[in-house]
Amino acid sequence: MTDATARLARAAAMSADLKSFETIDATRHDVDDDSIGYDVLYCGICHTDLHFVHNDLGGTKYPLVPGHEVAGVVTEVGKNVTKFKVGDKVGVGCIVDSCLKCKECAADEEQYCEKGMTMTYGYETTHGRAGPNGQQTMGGYSTRMVVNERFAIKIPDTAPLDKAAPLLCAGITLYDPIKQFGVKAGTRVGVAGVGGLGMMGIKIAAALGAEVTAISRSKAKEAKAKSFGAKHFVSMNDEASVAAAAGSLDLILDTVSACHDSEPYANMLDKRGTLCMLGLQVTPVAVNATQFVFTRKSVTGSLIGGIKNTQEMIDFCCSRDIYPEIEVIDVTKAPDALQALADGNCSGVRYVIDCKTIQ
Amino acid sequence: MTDATARLARAAAMSADLKSFETIDATRHDVDDDSIGYDVLYCGICHTDLHFVHNDLGGTKYPLVPGHEVAGVVTEVGKNVTKFKVGDKVGVGCIVDSCLKCKECAADEEQYCEKGMTMTYGYETTHGRAGPNGQQTMGGYSTRMVVNERFAIKIPDTAPLDKAAPLLCAGITLYDPIKQFGVKAGTRVGVAGVGGLGMMGIKIAAALGAEVTAISRSKAKEAKAKSFGAKHFVSMNDEASVAAAAGSLDLILDTVSACHDSEPYANMLDKRGTLCMLGLQVTPVAVNATQFVFTRKSVTGSLIGGIKNTQEMIDFCCSRDIYPEIEVIDVTKAPDALQALADGNCSGVRYVIDCKTIQ
Repeated sequence: MTDATARLARAAAMSADLKSFETIDATRHDVDDDSIGYDVLYCGICHTDLHFVHNDLGGTKYPLVPGHEVAGVVTEVGKNVTKFKVGDKVGVGCIVDSCLKCKECAADEEQYCEKGMTMTYGYETTHGRAGPNGQQTMGGYSTRMVVNERFAIKIPDTAPLDKAAPLLCAGITLYDPIKQFGVKAGTRVGVAGVGGLGMMGIKIAAALGAEVTAISRSKAKEAKAKSFGAKHFVSMNDEASVAAAAGSLDLILDTVSACHDSEPYANMLDKRGTLCMLGLQVTPVAVNATQFVFTRKSVTGSLIGGIKNTQEMIDFCCSRDIYPEIEVIDVTKAPDALQALADGNCSGVRYVIDCKTIQ
Repeated sequence: MTDATARLARAAAMSADLKSFETIDATRHDVDDDSIGYDVLYCGICHTDLHFVHNDLGGTKYPLVPGHEVAGVVTEVGKNVTKFKVGDKVGVGCIVDSCLKCKECAADEEQYCEKGMTMTYGYETTHGRAGPNGQQTMGGYSTRMVVNERFAIKIPDTAPLDKAAPLLCAGITLYDPIKQFGVKAGTRVGVAGVGGLGMMGIKIAAALGAEVTAISRSKAKEAKAKSFGAKHFVSMNDEASVAAAAGSLDLILDTVSACHDSEPYANMLDKRGTLCMLGLQVTPVAVNATQFVFTRKSVTGSLIGGIKNTQEMIDFCCSRDIYPEIEVIDVTKAPDALQALADGNCSGVRYVIDCKTIQ
C-alpha cells in the first residue's frame, strides 16, 4: 500500500531571510490505514499566509511551507478509508488534526479544540493523525500531501478545483458565522472588506436571500461588490455614505485585517445587531459603551469553521456555483501575490497557485 | 376624584450652580383615569443621578429633580386603574412612559422604545401619559408623584419600602441580563464592581444557583461580596488573582461606571463567554481581536429592563428576601452620598433618601 516515492513531494518554502520562496523537498508521512495521499493541484493564497511568512503572530519556523486552501486528487487510500477512492477530488482547509476527544471536537468545532487544533502548516504535530508528533506541518504550496480522512473534504466531481480551493478557508470563514447567526432571507448583512473573504460573504449571504451591504474603503470596489450580489455599498471614505447607513444592519461580517476603527461599523448596526470580527487586526477593537448599553449591540468574532460545516459549505457552494473570483498563478508569482494582499488586494481576486508549477 | 392639593409636591432639586440641592415646589400633573397618585416614602440614589446632576451626558436642564428608585404608597387612583387601590405599596423605576406602539414596547422592552422612552426624571414628556407634553419629568427626590399604572410596579405588602426602592433600578439592571443570558444553577457568573448594582448581581445570580465570582479593585470588599453570595473573589489590583481567574467565567456583568480596561475582564471569560457592560464608562470598551476570533467571546451591554421584567424581578426578590444593603439618609445628606458614589462608593451600601425629610 505504501509507495515511498509517492511521499516525495516538492514544496515552495519561505526561508528565514524572507527574501523569496525556494523549492524544497517535502517528504510526506506515510499513508496509514485512516489516511489518504493526494496530488495537490491548486492552493489558494490567504492573508494568513502573509502573517505567517512575516512572522506577524510570532512563532514562525523557517523554512515555512504555507497554504491551507488545498485542492487535489486522491492517489492512495488507507484500508479503513471509506469516504474516498483513488481519483476522487479532495480538499483540505486549515485543520489537519485535533484531539477528537474534547467537547469542542465532539461538537464538530475542531477549530476550538481544547487541546489545540493542528493547523495545516506551521504547527507542531501533536495528536498523531498528521504524521509523527513533534514535526512542523507543511501546507499546500506543494505537490503532494497526506491527510487523515477525518480532516479531508469531499469536493464534487463537477466542481472546478482551482475555484474550489479558496473555499476551504475563505469560504468556510464566512459560511460559519453566516450559519451561526442564522442569516436568512431578509437579514440585513454588512460585509466589510471586499477581498478574498468579503466576496465569499457577499455571495453566500446573497444566495441565502439576505439583503447585503458591501462596505469598503475603496469606492472602486462598488461595481464588483454589486456583481457579487450586494444590494447596497458603503464607501468608508465618504462620510455621507457612512452616515446614511446608520442603524441599517443586523450583522456585519468584518473581514478587514488591517487596523481600523470599529465605531463607524457599530454605528451601522441596528439595535441588537452584531459586529463579527473575522480578521486579526493588531490594535484593539474599540467601541463606545453607549453602543452596547443603549442598543444592546454586540461585538464578537469567528474563526474558520469545523470539518462538518466545511463539508456542508463545499456542498452548498459547489451545488450553487458559488466560487470566488480567482487568478491562477505560477508559484514564482506567489511573492507578488502576497505583496498584493499586503497592499489591500486592489484587484479583489483570490490568487491561486497552480501547483504543477512547483518543481 | 382630583384633589388639587394632592399634586402640591415638594422636591429636592439641583440648581444650575451645582452647589447644592434646594427644596422646590414640584406640582404634579393630574391623576387621569389611567393613573395613580402616591406619596413617595423612599428614593434610592443611583450613579446615574450623579451623571445627570453633573450633566456628564449633556442635556441636563436645571432645576433637576433626580430619583428613579421610587417607593411609596398609593393615595389616589383613576377610574380605569385595576392594578392598584389606595393604600397599596407602589414602585416606579426609570421609565414613566413610552410609545406603547412599536415592536420594542410590544415586546415589553420599553427601555428600547423606538420613539424613545420617557425616563422618570430629566426627560421631556412626549407620549401623553406622564403629564402634558413638553415638560421635564421630575424624579423621586420628592414627596409625591403621579404615574400611569402601565408604568407602576406592585410592591408586595410585606416588603420593606426602603430596601425595595433600589430594586427599581439597581435590581432590574442586573436581573434583566441575568435572565437574558439564561443564568441558572452552575453558570459561572462574574460581577465586576461591588457597589449598589454589583451587590444585586451577586445576590440574584447566587439565588439562581450560579457560581458567582465578585471582581473588584478593592480587596476590602471581598468579605462583603462573599456575604452576598459570591463564591470567589478577584482583586483587580492583584496580578496573581487576575491571572488565576483566566478563562473561568461564562458571563461577566460589568457594573463599573469609571473608565477601565476591558481586556483583563475578557481574559477571565471562557470560550464563547460574554462581557456585558452595564455602566457607561466614557472611554471606549477595547478588547483585542484575538479574544473575539480565537475564542468567540462577545462584548455586549444591557440597559435597565422593561416594566414586565421589573415586576417579575420585584416578585422574585421580595419573595426571597433579596434586597440591597442600604443606608437611609436625610435628603440633606444627598450631596454627600452622591460624592461617595463619585469616589467609588467604598461603603458598598445603596443610599436611600427618606423622602419625609424633604420639606
